[in-house]
Amino acid sequence: MGNSLGKLFVITSFGESHGRCVGTIIDGCPAGLPITVEDIQREVDKRRPGAGVAATARLEADKVEILSGVFNGTSTGAPICLLIWNKDVDSSEYEKMRYLPRPGHADYTAFIKYGGFNDFRGGGRFSGRITATFVMAGAIAKKLLNLMGMDVLAHTIEIGGIKAEPVPFDEIRENVEKNLVRCADPKAAGEMVTLIEKVREEGDSIGGIVEGIALNVPVGWGEPVFDTLEGDLAKALFAIPAVKGVEFGTGFSVSGKRGSENNDPFTIRDNKIVTTTNNAGGILGGISNGMPVVARVAVKPTSSIAKSQQTVNLENMQSTQLTVKGRHDVCIVPRAVPVVEAMIAVTLCDFAMRAELLPRVLK
Amino acid sequence: MGNSLGKLFVITSFGESHGRCVGTIIDGCPAGLPITVEDIQREVDKRRPGAGVAATARLEADKVEILSGVFNGTSTGAPICLLIWNKDVDSSEYEKMRYLPRPGHADYTAFIKYGGFNDFRGGGRFSGRITATFVMAGAIAKKLLNLMGMDVLAHTIEIGGIKAEPVPFDEIRENVEKNLVRCADPKAAGEMVTLIEKVREEGDSIGGIVEGIALNVPVGWGEPVFDTLEGDLAKALFAIPAVKGVEFGTGFSVSGKRGSENNDPFTIRDNKIVTTTNNAGGILGGISNGMPVVARVAVKPTSSIAKSQQTVNLENMQSTQLTVKGRHDVCIVPRAVPVVEAMIAVTLCDFAMRAELLPRVLK
Amino acid sequence: MGNSLGKLFVITSFGESHGRCVGTIIDGCPAGLPITVEDIQREVDKRRPGAGVAATARLEADKVEILSGVFNGTSTGAPICLLIWNKDVDSSEYEKMRYLPRPGHADYTAFIKYGGFNDFRGGGRFSGRITATFVMAGAIAKKLLNLMGMDVLAHTIEIGGIKAEPVPFDEIRENVEKNLVRCADPKAAGEMVTLIEKVREEGDSIGGIVEGIALNVPVGWGEPVFDTLEGDLAKALFAIPAVKGVEFGTGFSVSGKRGSENNDPFTIRDNKIVTTTNNAGGILGGISNGMPVVARVAVKPTSSIAKSQQTVNLENMQSTQLTVKGRHDVCIVPRAVPVVEAMIAVTLCDFAMRAELLPRVLK
Amino acid sequence: MGNSLGKLFVITSFGESHGRCVGTIIDGCPAGLPITVEDIQREVDKRRPGAGVAATARLEADKVEILSGVFNGTSTGAPICLLIWNKDVDSSEYEKMRYLPRPGHADYTAFIKYGGFNDFRGGGRFSGRITATFVMAGAIAKKLLNLMGMDVLAHTIEIGGIKAEPVPFDEIRENVEKNLVRCADPKAAGEMVTLIEKVREEGDSIGGIVEGIALNVPVGWGEPVFDTLEGDLAKALFAIPAVKGVEFGTGFSVSGKRGSENNDPFTIRDNKIVTTTNNAGGILGGISNGMPVVARVAVKPTSSIAKSQQTVNLENMQSTQLTVKGRHDVCIVPRAVPVVEAMIAVTLCDFAMRAELLPRVLK
Repeated sequence: MGNSLGKLFVITSFGESHGRCVGTIIDGCPAGLPITVEDIQREVDKRRPGAGVAATARLEADKVEILSGVFNGTSTGAPICLLIWNKDVDSSEYEKMRYLPRPGHADYTAFIKYGGFNDFRGGGRFSGRITATFVMAGAIAKKLLNLMGMDVLAHTIEIGGIKAEPVPFDEIRENVEKNLVRCADPKAAGEMVTLIEKVREEGDSIGGIVEGIALNVPVGWGEPVFDTLEGDLAKALFAIPAVKGVEFGTGFSVSGKRGSENNDPFTIRDNKIVTTTNNAGGILGGISNGMPVVARVAVKPTSSIAKSQQTVNLENMQSTQLTVKGRHDVCIVPRAVPVVEAMIAVTLCDFAMRAELLPRVLK
Repeated sequence: MGNSLGKLFVITSFGESHGRCVGTIIDGCPAGLPITVEDIQREVDKRRPGAGVAATARLEADKVEILSGVFNGTSTGAPICLLIWNKDVDSSEYEKMRYLPRPGHADYTAFIKYGGFNDFRGGGRFSGRITATFVMAGAIAKKLLNLMGMDVLAHTIEIGGIKAEPVPFDEIRENVEKNLVRCADPKAAGEMVTLIEKVREEGDSIGGIVEGIALNVPVGWGEPVFDTLEGDLAKALFAIPAVKGVEFGTGFSVSGKRGSENNDPFTIRDNKIVTTTNNAGGILGGISNGMPVVARVAVKPTSSIAKSQQTVNLENMQSTQLTVKGRHDVCIVPRAVPVVEAMIAVTLCDFAMRAELLPRVLK
Repeated sequence: MGNSLGKLFVITSFGESHGRCVGTIIDGCPAGLPITVEDIQREVDKRRPGAGVAATARLEADKVEILSGVFNGTSTGAPICLLIWNKDVDSSEYEKMRYLPRPGHADYTAFIKYGGFNDFRGGGRFSGRITATFVMAGAIAKKLLNLMGMDVLAHTIEIGGIKAEPVPFDEIRENVEKNLVRCADPKAAGEMVTLIEKVREEGDSIGGIVEGIALNVPVGWGEPVFDTLEGDLAKALFAIPAVKGVEFGTGFSVSGKRGSENNDPFTIRDNKIVTTTNNAGGILGGISNGMPVVARVAVKPTSSIAKSQQTVNLENMQSTQLTVKGRHDVCIVPRAVPVVEAMIAVTLCDFAMRAELLPRVLK
Repeated sequence: MGNSLGKLFVITSFGESHGRCVGTIIDGCPAGLPITVEDIQREVDKRRPGAGVAATARLEADKVEILSGVFNGTSTGAPICLLIWNKDVDSSEYEKMRYLPRPGHADYTAFIKYGGFNDFRGGGRFSGRITATFVMAGAIAKKLLNLMGMDVLAHTIEIGGIKAEPVPFDEIRENVEKNLVRCADPKAAGEMVTLIEKVREEGDSIGGIVEGIALNVPVGWGEPVFDTLEGDLAKALFAIPAVKGVEFGTGFSVSGKRGSENNDPFTIRDNKIVTTTNNAGGILGGISNGMPVVARVAVKPTSSIAKSQQTVNLENMQSTQLTVKGRHDVCIVPRAVPVVEAMIAVTLCDFAMRAELLPRVLK
């Protein structure tokens, strides 16, 4: 259980890393939205392993197919099933490690939770590959948000302690796909690439921080006291494997701030009420305030590393050493970028429908 | 909408800061749990404003009443309604500020979302007072977790940049109520108190960080890919007003960590599989791994400050200055501590029931 | 668990027959709806035991109180808590019967389900008195539907085999409160009253059928394939104690019908598409078709009868005879009428919000 | 929206009659359940059009495929995706009728609800073919119930006014597949077949009643006051196209019953508490009482008939005549039988998990 997210715009994820396919159902997409396979493919391609520094060895075509819910190129109001068949799958390595849980991975918790029946191959349901199902759903959500005049973007702001300088939204949009680390600050990006290469040589991995931004979200989204905008965004973002922290606006820096610094003063700009700063990250009282929604997401270093690690053999309960074979992403932060975008978009669509701002039929 | 939380152990919050009452419904508490008013009162008293440094002027008795669901001192399986009547209420100040949204507060977003119909007095639904409804539900949840051998605790680990040194769990439990800032490190606690006094004199406010810990959570709680333990805990914690960040284990520090540092090696201790470190904060793949669940929560500086602030008059759309009258908490971090405990407890109970580990009748 | 109903317009019921109170939370009512205690009281009064043929001995004032969610006479968008304090409660009789489950009642199933911890006094959560919490919520729902130009009505169409003749909607509205059985056909009503008197003298009880009608429901409400209009209405109606069947339009008579009779031909009337008959009961494919929504609800004979009945003593597992003391409704069908109205109204409001036809702020 | 059903055992339906496929996701199936394609295929085959009296022209292989959630022949705890590719599809006839809503069908309501964007071919989401997705989910649910010692069966009890005589459960199980109408009373079955032939010659269709029975359901399933066993079963059953009524036990006959007749006396049999009659249909107060759960379902005559019918052209709003081409089921009652079984099984599994009676891992 627990594989559906949302109240009115509901996504359901299915499939395993080394099973037949990975897929998603989007239930609640308004009728009348033009949808092509290319719309989805474009987003999915973003999270594919590239040829560059952050790459894994697995090179799948990852061809998206639309199985239902689209008719004559348009959403019908029925559930949309999107699917990618798995192809390039070598599970032999995993069979050997079946009873050797990899530190930092879900191997051990899944083994206990599902009584050893879980599909462990390639991490099964806990593989980063499952985020392809998020990105497919996010592609639909982004189209809907764009129709409403909104925009969601994400970029890498920190890797291995190297921090990007803040850049304007337009530059983020422009720069993010220009380098392999998806960092909008070219100087920091260069340093990050260099660091990643170094870490790769060490047989190690490294973490970082992704920032997600939603522009032009209307005032009033979020349903406190429990279905807050922050709470539902955080829940969606924690579904991304390796995420260990989510913050909005000032976030954890609040500890060093005074109220007089952190409160965002209200003013009028272009006949609209805005705040002169955005320490709130666009959210006050769990409700959007019309300023950019800004979330930051902590992504831990890839758990799979070349170095030998200590574990326990689940069959004989003996301590042992484990070396994870194969090439793995040294740093998954850049690949998390489109996934962060997707999860923000999906969550916002759900709030749009709760706020009756997204019509059920688009004309 | 959005005032219920949980799937099987469901809490519903109602009431306003200056309305007749604040209350909570707990639906899903197993039958057979002994419950007294004192059980709830004890927890609620923890979040009351004290007489000390972190105090507000409002001094209510905050007497808990049980309205339903308890019969002969025992839960019946029916929804439990717990209620506190509001008494000491002076709303005159708020009437004057009706159209002057206080920076950092939900005044503006609530005004727009609810079309000006929201009960603005004392912040209405957005008041810290609403957390009393969380704490009442948490009192029940903590009793259930205790029955299962679990324990939830929380403490202040940072205020105004002053960081507490790590202390063992036992000391946290012992020390947390010994000072006004609920910090288990006595030295840091002293410095925090001094800083708060200084900030009070400046007419300002200050933020900090609370750490919540759940001990003895069994392996296997959490329902990935969406209903992860992190995701649902985060959603619950973001319902606490002023929370702007939630992280688990290493959290945002992951950016500076290598995988070889951050992965927690598995080993055997007392015939049980444990990890030698707990950078995962007790959660792997969204599922508890048997280690202590460790969450940290960023609490922003109190929005109400004595200093004059810039705002906009919603009636005439003119910029103006606002000075918030009355005494307010300079730092709400200490009062957030029992609320963090409550939200963690409530969330864990819900997972206990989904994992069929909490029987529906206790005998 | 299971005490909340709805997705966006959510009602939560709490309280017990002989506890302190019965109450309801309505979460999702749009802001800006004028609400007075009288609005709710009027509906609640309808389900009170009258002085007439269908009466019970319990005569409570049943004074409604608004505890939250209404400010300056208007809904605020926050959860509305409505409550009735219990007053006239004599539980002595029930204590004696604690281990003697009354045939037809929930005594036995509740005893087992809740391990004997349930509040058995007066039937506890299974008392007809709990429907007062439905009617309070229904009062709010009916106000919202009226604002949208809709109307919900219900009437008794059969008691003890005596069937009312069909009467036009206007006459139903006019006649339903004119007699004690809430039957819009005066002739049948008279016969029903006579029959009820006869059954009372026999120390027995009798069942019947209530018809609920919703007028001016727009085309397009209902969310197939699972959240159909029929399905959600049925679920809501089965929450009424004693209901054992729900049908729409032709209902169970379909067995004797040919498709050519039962299909409702489409035609144009006043420039609108209508059907010339309404065998579908206003619902096609689980979606409203613009014709009156017509549901019929089977209400079993009151389980409490004066006659001696066979049961089992749960303490010693011996068969024994039971005589239920006190005066009880001979026929609860008339008192079910306002409850049927309430549950239909509540369900329709939820669909109105899902169909984005009910604005979140009323102006 | 609205294409998922259940709380812990959640099924999601997708696909269209003339789209690429129909499919279902089962989220919440415990890990460790042996599942083969044959298990599912066997159930799906039951609802295929036969060669006999109740046949349609469409003869698909309807080959079930397992796409996810099963590994090494066993459920993994991950969502199970089951799929049938559509093959024998001729949509030409439907293109002609696009703007001519067929009386009794969802054509008109879907057209309005989805703004004309719905996939109308073959009825799209409203086709009886969608029930294959229910039956696939039901096959899994039935396996789980069987493991717990329960059994679900269904049979035709009335067609065109011809009523079957009651037969014992064993005979139902034995007889139901012996004739084309799935009626366990051979004599009535013969008359039904004759009647269906006659109605076919008239170019008409005919309705009936299906009875569903669940045996050995433990005492205590159902979560009143809203998530009653009756309510959730009814909601699930109303998802079956053509269902217009659901009743339990005495059902609509209660109107003619006295309480003294209708109340089921308790007694002891084999050291267990049972009732001597089962007018409650196994449910008291919305909770199972250990007796067989008995539901009856009214199935309307097939809407597609050969006779000319009156409708309105949605393009030009003119009244017109419509003749539905092709061969259609004269009576879908027999094909509803396995679907009723499936929906009862699915609902019971969900209650089993809520009642913590179904372990999350089967060993």
